[in-house]
Amino acid sequence: MADDRGEVRGRGWAPVTRARTYELVLDRIEEQIASGRLRAGDRLPAERDLAAALGVSRVAVREAMRVLQAMGLITQGTGSGRESGTLLTAAPGEALTRLIRMHVLVASVGSHDLISARITLERESARLAASAASAEDHEQLADALRALEDPATSPVAFNDADTAFHVAIARASGNSLVAELTTALRNAMRVPLLERLEGDADFAATAAQLSAEHRAVYEALLAGDGDRAADLVQAHIAGFYQRHGLA
Amino acid sequence: MADDRGEVRGRGWAPVTRARTYELVLDRIEEQIASGRLRAGDRLPAERDLAAALGVSRVAVREAMRVLQAMGLITQGTGSGRESGTLLTAAPGEALTRLIRMHVLVASVGSHDLISARITLERESARLAASAASAEDHEQLADALRALEDPATSPVAFNDADTAFHVAIARASGNSLVAELTTALRNAMRVPLLERLEGDADFAATAAQLSAEHRAVYEALLAGDGDRAADLVQAHIAGFYQRHGLA
Repeated sequence: MADDRGEVRGRGWAPVTRARTYELVLDRIEEQIASGRLRAGDRLPAERDLAAALGVSRVAVREAMRVLQAMGLITQGTGSGRESGTLLTAAPGEALTRLIRMHVLVASVGSHDLISARITLERESARLAASAASAEDHEQLADALRALEDPATSPVAFNDADTAFHVAIARASGNSLVAELTTALRNAMRVPLLERLEGDADFAATAAQLSAEHRAVYEALLAGDGDRAADLVQAHIAGFYQRHGLA
Repeated sequence: MADDRGEVRGRGWAPVTRARTYELVLDRIEEQIASGRLRAGDRLPAERDLAAALGVSRVAVREAMRVLQAMGLITQGTGSGRESGTLLTAAPGEALTRLIRMHVLVASVGSHDLISARITLERESARLAASAASAEDHEQLADALRALEDPATSPVAFNDADTAFHVAIARASGNSLVAELTTALRNAMRVPLLERLEGDADFAATAAQLSAEHRAVYEALLAGDGDRAADLVQAHIAGFYQRHGLA
């Protein structure tokens, strides 16, 4: 039976793919956004009204809402009044992080590829940040650096400060997409990186080396030297992964 | 009422965020993947079995499946037999493209940022492709180039061949994540780019110039000159957007 179907397919027949109803709802919402009739901050119609307007079930509308929520495109308030209802929003960060993390986990993305993509994006973040960073950005980098350099910092807190440092560089780049992608790639590696830090027999020495590398990047950024900051970020990322058997 | 709530919040109170049931289902599935008990190609339990095992409703399981499908993490077959059921898969491309395209549309990502991110990733793709491309990759580039250089090519077909050329470079890079991200950014711009080509009063001249730029990139790749390929790709992308008022 299965083989028969395979043979028929070989002669140019392929299964009809029917879009599911919730996908058609997503398409309609995308059309509204693309045409400018629906903008960030706008409230979406209530579930029952949208179902009636599109001629579909409330279940299909709710499924589409789940997908939009997972994409960081809507926030759903609870209760009544000003903060209730479904608002179109724009927060791609968590969705990107989850998407990339899940694909790293199912191994459609290998860690070598992830590291190389991270280096590409973080080089660009650092290069841009060297000229675009504000005093506030410098302050955030300095805060993260203080936590990294404190010998009392635990592996978990160290990893959080490390993430905060890299995210601050990405934000300071002034390019929101580069920043979101950089942050997503860093966050997607959070758990394996933390495991390496927690399992490190000489965590104090590792922390001291990593702190020194972060400080050198920070100083290149303060000096406005984008090329040097990019090279130091690359050496820092590649070195860590190599020393910890992740590359 | 709303103001009262605001004041209370100001004193350190914030709303309790309750995870929805489908989010807990997603967390359980991610745990199975992270632990290696669920791998790409594996079949997920049937909806009713998963609902029973997790102690949740079938509706919650189905909502989680919609999200996984939108993330390119499962494929759902129809009918019975070998090809039925829900398989864990790994195809992040479409999900990434949709995510980035939607966020460009709601303007959480500006087109200047998108172009700059595209240039960063495509420089890296080109640099890697110059040494990693196979004979098959070269053939795909040559195919796309033939379509670009054919004066009979329509704007739609030109845009498709243009996409195919950039996607072929991304694939030839050998880095699947850089390739997926590069492709997603190119595809997210498909409609505005096509509108510019279709509205171009002198499409023939534009097509000739773009074809020549693509050919120069192709020749640098064939010659294995990664730095030159990267510089040419950057000039090509930046030039197009500038000439068409998209930068």
